Amino acid sequence: MQIALDRGNPMPLYTQVAQDIQRRIRSGALPPGARLPTIRALALQLGVTRLTVHAAYNELQSGGWIEATVGRGTFVAEGIRPHMSAAELGREVSAGGLISDMLRMAQLPGIRSLAMADAAPDLYPQRDFGRAVEEALAVGPAMFGYTTPHGDPILRSVLADLLVDRGMHVTSDELVITSGVTQGLAMVAQALAQPGDTAIVEQPTYLGALSVFGSRGLRLIGASMDEHGLVTDELENLILAHRPRFIYAIPAFQNPTGVCMSAERRTHLLAIAARHRVPIIEDDIYARVIYEGSAPPALYAEDRSGMVLHLSSFSKVLLPGVRLGYIAAAPQWVGRLIHAKQTSDLCSPPLLQRAMAIFIQRGGLANHLRRALPRYRERRDVLLSAMSRYFPSDLRWTEPRGGFNVWVTLPPFINTTDLYLAGIERGVAFVPGNAFFTGPTAQPYMRLAFSGATPEVIIEAVRVLGELLGTHAMRRTLVRETPNDYVPLV
Amino acid sequence: MQIALDRGNPMPLYTQVAQDIQRRIRSGALPPGARLPTIRALALQLGVTRLTVHAAYNELQSGGWIEATVGRGTFVAEGIRPHMSAAELGREVSAGGLISDMLRMAQLPGIRSLAMADAAPDLYPQRDFGRAVEEALAVGPAMFGYTTPHGDPILRSVLADLLVDRGMHVTSDELVITSGVTQGLAMVAQALAQPGDTAIVEQPTYLGALSVFGSRGLRLIGASMDEHGLVTDELENLILAHRPRFIYAIPAFQNPTGVCMSAERRTHLLAIAARHRVPIIEDDIYARVIYEGSAPPALYAEDRSGMVLHLSSFSKVLLPGVRLGYIAAAPQWVGRLIHAKQTSDLCSPPLLQRAMAIFIQRGGLANHLRRALPRYRERRDVLLSAMSRYFPSDLRWTEPRGGFNVWVTLPPFINTTDLYLAGIERGVAFVPGNAFFTGPTAQPYMRLAFSGATPEVIIEAVRVLGELLGTHAMRRTLVRETPNDYVPLV
Repeated sequence: MQIALDRGNPMPLYTQVAQDIQRRIRSGALPPGARLPTIRALALQLGVTRLTVHAAYNELQSGGWIEATVGRGTFVAEGIRPHMSAAELGREVSAGGLISDMLRMAQLPGIRSLAMADAAPDLYPQRDFGRAVEEALAVGPAMFGYTTPHGDPILRSVLADLLVDRGMHVTSDELVITSGVTQGLAMVAQALAQPGDTAIVEQPTYLGALSVFGSRGLRLIGASMDEHGLVTDELENLILAHRPRFIYAIPAFQNPTGVCMSAERRTHLLAIAARHRVPIIEDDIYARVIYEGSAPPALYAEDRSGMVLHLSSFSKVLLPGVRLGYIAAAPQWVGRLIHAKQTSDLCSPPLLQRAMAIFIQRGGLANHLRRALPRYRERRDVLLSAMSRYFPSDLRWTEPRGGFNVWVTLPPFINTTDLYLAGIERGVAFVPGNAFFTGPTAQPYMRLAFSGATPEVIIEAVRVLGELLGTHAMRRTLVRETPNDYVPLV
Repeated sequence: MQIALDRGNPMPLYTQVAQDIQRRIRSGALPPGARLPTIRALALQLGVTRLTVHAAYNELQSGGWIEATVGRGTFVAEGIRPHMSAAELGREVSAGGLISDMLRMAQLPGIRSLAMADAAPDLYPQRDFGRAVEEALAVGPAMFGYTTPHGDPILRSVLADLLVDRGMHVTSDELVITSGVTQGLAMVAQALAQPGDTAIVEQPTYLGALSVFGSRGLRLIGASMDEHGLVTDELENLILAHRPRFIYAIPAFQNPTGVCMSAERRTHLLAIAARHRVPIIEDDIYARVIYEGSAPPALYAEDRSGMVLHLSSFSKVLLPGVRLGYIAAAPQWVGRLIHAKQTSDLCSPPLLQRAMAIFIQRGGLANHLRRALPRYRERRDVLLSAMSRYFPSDLRWTEPRGGFNVWVTLPPFINTTDLYLAGIERGVAFVPGNAFFTGPTAQPYMRLAFSGATPEVIIEAVRVLGELLGTHAMRRTLVRETPNDYVPLV
């Protein structure tokens, strides 16, 4: 198998290999059941490391294109889909694989991980939430039957009250319960767009959104960010050029950058959305995770056009595993969202919905935030001061007032894949910046999430990363060896 | 608005009205914000009942095409999708609306419903399952964090053991946890097909499957059923003509017919699937709900080609609201299914997954079935004997050995919509047969589900239906007035 690799191409080598093989499978040149070369043989033949081929095969396998049988070899999978476009494939395979790797890695013991931007397990309000579950259990059979796709009426009513803290005045009819923001995004993609349609996303943005939208066949256009958030000046041209079905934005403590959208930009964005009648998907998941001052009001609260769909969940502020979130939207969108929920999983488990309602109604969310936010703030402060201490002086990073993430701009000669691999070897994990972009990016970044790690882990992880970044030898190695090679989190 | 209605068309009048308005919206003739006539005015103009226009508007509203504002009127919704095909619309709007109506109706007090084929709330193993939840709560923070999209390893291992009762030998790696069969079907559609692709379904079949597949843009081809299940002789021609991505079948106690696929048909189906390399989606949800003899073995157990994806859930045998199901599939499919799960909702709640594992491991499922199956059998027997007593002698129906449904073939001059409306007026509900077909059907049917109703309710419901069916006056009315009018469940 002769694969032409372009080392000047910003696309990682492993992606080039994976995409070449995908093309062959889709064209029929590699039919279902065909045997692929061994990792060793292909690496030798292409003059790349085995890690590169390994990563390419991993991607192909997690995308269902190939299958490996121990002792037999690697083969083209049966029943693959020849219809998908190359763009869909690239996105589907990469972002999905990365999340999967992160979730797997989060369960590995011993890794000092700054990779997961998650609520800290040591801060989970387990006992209080457990009591709410027990109370819900006592409600009776309704907790074990179906509820409407719309969601438990009591939870929706509690949420309508809660959302006043975001400046929002919604009725419970304008709320639809979801299994987390992830399902909310999938429902939005189903309700508002068709495969092949275009959507605009902030660049960089939440990699789960890239993965969900990509899996629904959407073509994603990245819009620039700066320290005031989404650069709205460019937006009208993008809208006119690409006719997007919606714009996805995280206005408060953006993931991965930690930036808040300025008041001026918010106003501009809403005016553009109203003028062009393009819905805005507002991901508000970090808005209650705040360390200084106050969060910007929700776009939904400032909107007069009915074009904002507001998504959030309890995964950051409470417990991710409860898998509960919500969409607030004007009545014109609700029917379609309910239909999307119904054809996704009929409804979210009523027992957990009711437990969440009871928990919030008893003040559990407010109590938890009072207790947890100082701890998260401490972790952020520890991270920022460790970075000042251990990181080379030519690095720049954001200093977020909320959320879980710090975004680090690396010098252009750093290769984040090599840095990532070197980190893993030393027991430290972060997310390479590439993961958050819709396509290749020349500038290297990394995202450091401080929420899930104790101060000791944070300091040690930053010390190791600083050492790797600062070592003159490492820097030369990084430049010399595999400038465009990239391996996903493992 | 002049709408041409074809009263000879087997498509219900309300669908004709709804589709005509959809066409106008999609063509731009009715732009977003345009006001529609009042129900009264349109009914008068078209010479149809207000119920017909009401049903058409309801369908359009639940599909998100129009919105009604109290005191202002009815308007074309903002931000509608002009790209969808008419076929997608028809399916999306109708089956989805019907399920939604059924779920709503199930919550109405006072209706004697034979509509929902669900586990009976009065039989839920609430206390035992509640104890399993409490035990899972005690496991610790892992119950509130993310688990892998693949699913809780302990639940998968328990399921691998459980599936031996279906003749299946799978490893826990070959199992993927889903939020019910509904999500399993959505994941299969995402993993195996693209919008616009074709799939073959039994005719009639589970209406939730029609809804889920329709919402993913699949074109559905119906394959005939008889008393031995899917008529496999026709299948090869359908495969050659339509090149389906998969075949969806319910081999054990099929919904809505209650029929089991014969051994000969199963063998034939598997041979066809292997020869044409068409995956079979086996919905096994009723296989453990059995009153006499034994269930046919799972197709998955008899398959040697790796082409069967086996779906089931605990919604019928235990508790629907726990929203847990699973897919068993050969390794070649698993990567894609996990990716579909991840981009659907990341994972199902680990607390409920673990509680289910504990519950099954303690023998809770077996205990519950020992207790519940005699009750369901009693309900079936009560239904069958009430039908013999109260129904006219020209009706035919199935006598299922398992599952929750009896399928009634009505005389050709009966209009199921009128019968349905007359039933609702008398406080009795069932599901009109049309709901289970991919397109119009000339022969009228009704599905009577006996699982959720007490013997008293069953007898009274059948008595009322028998009265409606038997009254000579009613029969004449049914024939004379609105032969093709159809209103969804309300």
